[in-house]
Amino acid sequence: MAPTPTAAVLLIGDEILSGRTKDKNLGFIADYLVGLGIDLKEARCVADDEGDIVAAVNALRARYTYVFTTGGIGPTHDDITADAVAKAFQVPIGHHPRALEILLNYFKEIGREPNEARLRMARVPQGATLIENAVSKAPGFRMENVFVMAGVPKIMQAMMEAIAPGLERGVPMQSRTVTLLGGEGDVAKPLGEIQDRYTDVFIGSYPFEGATGFSTNLVVRSRVPASLEQAETEVKALAESMTREGKARGWS
Amino acid sequence: MAPTPTAAVLLIGDEILSGRTKDKNLGFIADYLVGLGIDLKEARCVADDEGDIVAAVNALRARYTYVFTTGGIGPTHDDITADAVAKAFQVPIGHHPRALEILLNYFKEIGREPNEARLRMARVPQGATLIENAVSKAPGFRMENVFVMAGVPKIMQAMMEAIAPGLERGVPMQSRTVTLLGGEGDVAKPLGEIQDRYTDVFIGSYPFEGATGFSTNLVVRSRVPASLEQAETEVKALAESMTREGKARGWS
Repeated sequence: MAPTPTAAVLLIGDEILSGRTKDKNLGFIADYLVGLGIDLKEARCVADDEGDIVAAVNALRARYTYVFTTGGIGPTHDDITADAVAKAFQVPIGHHPRALEILLNYFKEIGREPNEARLRMARVPQGATLIENAVSKAPGFRMENVFVMAGVPKIMQAMMEAIAPGLERGVPMQSRTVTLLGGEGDVAKPLGEIQDRYTDVFIGSYPFEGATGFSTNLVVRSRVPASLEQAETEVKALAESMTREGKARGWS
Repeated sequence: MAPTPTAAVLLIGDEILSGRTKDKNLGFIADYLVGLGIDLKEARCVADDEGDIVAAVNALRARYTYVFTTGGIGPTHDDITADAVAKAFQVPIGHHPRALEILLNYFKEIGREPNEARLRMARVPQGATLIENAVSKAPGFRMENVFVMAGVPKIMQAMMEAIAPGLERGVPMQSRTVTLLGGEGDVAKPLGEIQDRYTDVFIGSYPFEGATGFSTNLVVRSRVPASLEQAETEVKALAESMTREGKARGWS
């Protein structure tokens, strides 16, 4: 089996750290990468601050197969992602001919002035290739293993669709959920013992408050179908034996 | 004016990176810290991996006034946050007498077996103080400038309430939003000029698709009421002059 590609997400923008915008991009990208068999290993969120963006881009691109950034590629003064990425790669930034063409055509079509600020959106670091999108037209770009996307979810999602075919893929992780009508403390020991028997299965335990009281989702994940099946069977049997013993009464 | 306290959030858990859980804790903590006048500068999300947690805790605690972590403090095998934090601080970990007392009383009250796994939740790094909470009873803890909280939002929120009185505060950032019926490219240049005139105001521009088409929220933030007022007036005048000129037709 080829090694599984890894990834990090970098959310860029004051608006997330100030609480004004509740991020939805991380969840979308996380789900999307599962389908591609790419392991999302880390996410970060930084403000619209050049030094912070440069440091995060450089830390993440050195460590993972891919880095996906969102935010900061519009026409206003707080959109500094393209410049920061150029700085991270220590290359100049300039207007990309194809990006200029796309934007000039689009602004002509909708009757907008192609002013200097709008055309800033055609600037990409030297060596970058474009990530086109049908929603806003303003492209994102790929610079080596770093994919720079918009922050508006609808536009980011269109860019992700455009990027996907060019990504290396792994075997997708499959996931099964077994719901336990009880606190996770009831199953902690035997659950850990099941986990210990499988090196290719990842078992997580997530308590929640449902309509019928406190319960726990036991999530079994694996890339190996036979192991997934077997571990799920064991976890199910454990949950059923616990459910027979009593009702949920507390978080833990 | 005393320097503004800074903070980072560290979300811990495979379930966020796998897309299974859509995080809501970052948005809550971000909003909460605004009210306390604490600047949230960065957020990270790592898996239930000791090395990754240790590295993130150490990077963030050195850089910011406070670090708030969520997740990984339950009774199951995948709850490794307390051990990882002990490792980050290079101190031993053990059962905290008060935490044991709280848990033993609680389990007695609800008729649960205080098994070894459940009592793991009373383990904290040497030198830590407890963060009590009424929802789950299982406490979080504070280790120097690092606050370790639960991942379940309801429990985390109760812990945040318990922590707040002990935090250093700054002057809260005030925020005003001016909605522009147009793409942000229309105002980019004059908006940047307004930003350039204020060193104590932060102006952000956030396009969105509303019921009446593409619009932009222009957000003005400041800790200085007079500057906030003045900048907001300028941004409002700018938005009104643009709104008179035409209707929104595109994202940018």
